[in-house]
Amino acid sequence: MKTDFKPYYAVIFTNKRTLADDEGYGKMAVRMEALAKEQPGYLGMDHARTELGITISYWESLEAIKHWKNNLDHQNAQEKGRQIWYEWYHTRICKVEREYEFNG
Amino acid sequence: MKTDFKPYYAVIFTNKRTLADDEGYGKMAVRMEALAKEQPGYLGMDHARTELGITISYWESLEAIKHWKNNLDHQNAQEKGRQIWYEWYHTRICKVEREYEFNG
Repeated sequence: MKTDFKPYYAVIFTNKRTLADDEGYGKMAVRMEALAKEQPGYLGMDHARTELGITISYWESLEAIKHWKNNLDHQNAQEKGRQIWYEWYHTRICKVEREYEFNG
Repeated sequence: MKTDFKPYYAVIFTNKRTLADDEGYGKMAVRMEALAKEQPGYLGMDHARTELGITISYWESLEAIKHWKNNLDHQNAQEKGRQIWYEWYHTRICKVEREYEFNG
């Protein structure tokens, strides 16, 4: 654990895809990641998908998360997600209180 | 968002696998999930892997997380993980402060 650790925030987005419109989804995902990187307070993103999709984005503050949530392009993607791409999703806003790493 | 929301904890475990000993890893992962489910304060688990692996476990309290971390079988798996299975990993202990769901 770093001794200079400063708490930050993680948005855990778990989801199950519908089978619709794969190409549109891929383009949107790439565009949203690029756009997120431009936002104030953005720290990083992790993504994996097996059957379940998990995307975790990391942010400096709750304000940064709110700002990103309200971004108009992002809002459009969220709306299209509900209409077309996602069977369900679950979003969790979390405060990262501690962390540790292993590098083999 | 639920109005009766009670904060809980998430352990975000991101990792990159080595290429070694796949069968042993699969068995361990199944056994660790079964064992986690038996622990006090366990709430659930989400998992996905593309190149990056993400496992998120959910817990009622920091005490429950500490208890699970110190479980002897789990400690052995962690040790073997560092020796054999993981090129690197990153563990984040998070407090889930808010959540919302979409069910299409």
